[in-house]
Amino acid sequence: MKALVVEPAATLTFTDVPLPPLAAGECRVAVKLVGICRTDLELVKGYMGFRGIPGHEFTGRVVSGSDRLMGRRVVGEINAACGRCSTCRSGLGRHCPDRTVLGIYKRPGAFAEFVDLPEQNLLSVPDGVSDEEAVFVEPLAAALEIFEQMHILPGTRLLVIGDGKLGLLISQVCAALGARVTLFGRHEKKLALARRWNVEAVMPGDATPAFFERYSVVVECTGTPDALASAVTWTAPRGTLVLKSTYAPSHPPALNWAKIVIDEITILGSRCGPFAPALRLLASGKIDVRALIDHRKTLDQGVDAFDLAARKGTLKVLVAVNV
Amino acid sequence: MKALVVEPAATLTFTDVPLPPLAAGECRVAVKLVGICRTDLELVKGYMGFRGIPGHEFTGRVVSGSDRLMGRRVVGEINAACGRCSTCRSGLGRHCPDRTVLGIYKRPGAFAEFVDLPEQNLLSVPDGVSDEEAVFVEPLAAALEIFEQMHILPGTRLLVIGDGKLGLLISQVCAALGARVTLFGRHEKKLALARRWNVEAVMPGDATPAFFERYSVVVECTGTPDALASAVTWTAPRGTLVLKSTYAPSHPPALNWAKIVIDEITILGSRCGPFAPALRLLASGKIDVRALIDHRKTLDQGVDAFDLAARKGTLKVLVAVNV
Repeated sequence: MKALVVEPAATLTFTDVPLPPLAAGECRVAVKLVGICRTDLELVKGYMGFRGIPGHEFTGRVVSGSDRLMGRRVVGEINAACGRCSTCRSGLGRHCPDRTVLGIYKRPGAFAEFVDLPEQNLLSVPDGVSDEEAVFVEPLAAALEIFEQMHILPGTRLLVIGDGKLGLLISQVCAALGARVTLFGRHEKKLALARRWNVEAVMPGDATPAFFERYSVVVECTGTPDALASAVTWTAPRGTLVLKSTYAPSHPPALNWAKIVIDEITILGSRCGPFAPALRLLASGKIDVRALIDHRKTLDQGVDAFDLAARKGTLKVLVAVNV
Repeated sequence: MKALVVEPAATLTFTDVPLPPLAAGECRVAVKLVGICRTDLELVKGYMGFRGIPGHEFTGRVVSGSDRLMGRRVVGEINAACGRCSTCRSGLGRHCPDRTVLGIYKRPGAFAEFVDLPEQNLLSVPDGVSDEEAVFVEPLAAALEIFEQMHILPGTRLLVIGDGKLGLLISQVCAALGARVTLFGRHEKKLALARRWNVEAVMPGDATPAFFERYSVVVECTGTPDALASAVTWTAPRGTLVLKSTYAPSHPPALNWAKIVIDEITILGSRCGPFAPALRLLASGKIDVRALIDHRKTLDQGVDAFDLAARKGTLKVLVAVNV
């Protein structure tokens, strides 16, 4: 089949790869649409020593492996857990020590004509949710993970740092679910988008003294050491700083550790989230993900698509497969 | 009155200071016993630019300012809050932005013949609790603060890093309240003490591979960047790393930030705790604080007492006043 493959020299190639045999308990999905995520860009640059087919934000149609799902439009949870260990049995399958992760760790991803996942990882997409919306289920679930991990009150003053794809989506979700959200970013076009979603959006130059009052929840979405240090400063006593960017910082962030203890701040690592509520949220029509799409490409244009996605300021680039 | 005073050149002196007028709403306490805490040692070395009388772990007898408390043996909460701001009104008086802190910030401490605190900060010491026990209420409350901030299950595997005074006390409290506690330290004498309290105590050389299995709660009590980095490694997925040392590290800790996000670890800053439950715990007889006393000195020997307390391996040094 045709696929995008990360080669040892950290280059991405559009090429032909053999279709592997389908493993027991797994389904094969004919991929329809794949989103390029910042993690994909990092993987191509060598993050985690990745080799093979990337891609974990996808939607497609089941072509084999399950009578129940045959022919259905699906999305797929990216963590494939063993289901037997104590971590899995305690309900934390997404943290299974033996898990594989779609297009990230020990499991070929979705930038290909076909992708395989265990049947229990797949969820049917409701009729009211289009392919272009369904492909956002994975990042939307990652946004909802914050709500799985902590209690956000309707009156919570919540600050999102970074107006990239994830920061915009998290701002939108938090505002839709009732929090009072401020987004701190650097791109007027993106901040204007956020304002449509009932988010207060601020650039560094426009930040009034009131902005620097501290927030009881701060969500760091830039992955830079400097933003992390600022995030600590802006988190209120007993507040929570959520880290949403998986990153290997170039240098250790110089945080105010004394403040973290004195103000009893919580730093909360937050990764993948639950797909079913994300699909429900999409079906409700409350979340506008289409506004986040900047470019549409096809699989054979995949290398260009990655170059586009890597440009500063680009929002979501979607890659269509089997068109 | 006689007092120990930190002078501008970061030296500690036993000297005479004028007795200030008693402020409205405050009580004056004739100090009986004061404990030397690591924060005191840091203040003498210049931490937070401290000047004046240190000392925040004390017990004494009320001599003026309250009919209700007159003549009573008391201990005192160290944070004196305004009681009017939104932080205070939300029940977080210990985080009041206008607070003063006994012997630490804008309020003279207890290494003196008399110490003043607002009446509402003082709690009567039950008859069954001796002065030598009561002086431990403040660090005991700091240990209990962990339980105020998070839910520790009876089956929780909890690791305490550091066998200093606070690490020993936290190990003991967590074991007494039902957690399964391992203490990681470097002093055989201290670890032997911990074993008396139903704590598994381990030195680096004795650590078996099982030790390095990850813990769902890790409490960092050393305040060193290297221990903090190890603590991240040893915290299980979805686990919590509690920071109990107020510190200004010499260099930014090189943490595995990607692991914090991927494993969804919580880092929890934890400081002062509630005095009333700490007094109840002391009165219950379940906590052995006397075993933590290494030396007893008098106020005029205070400078020597601080030198003793600063020696590696020393546990609690108590200073008697008005003997």
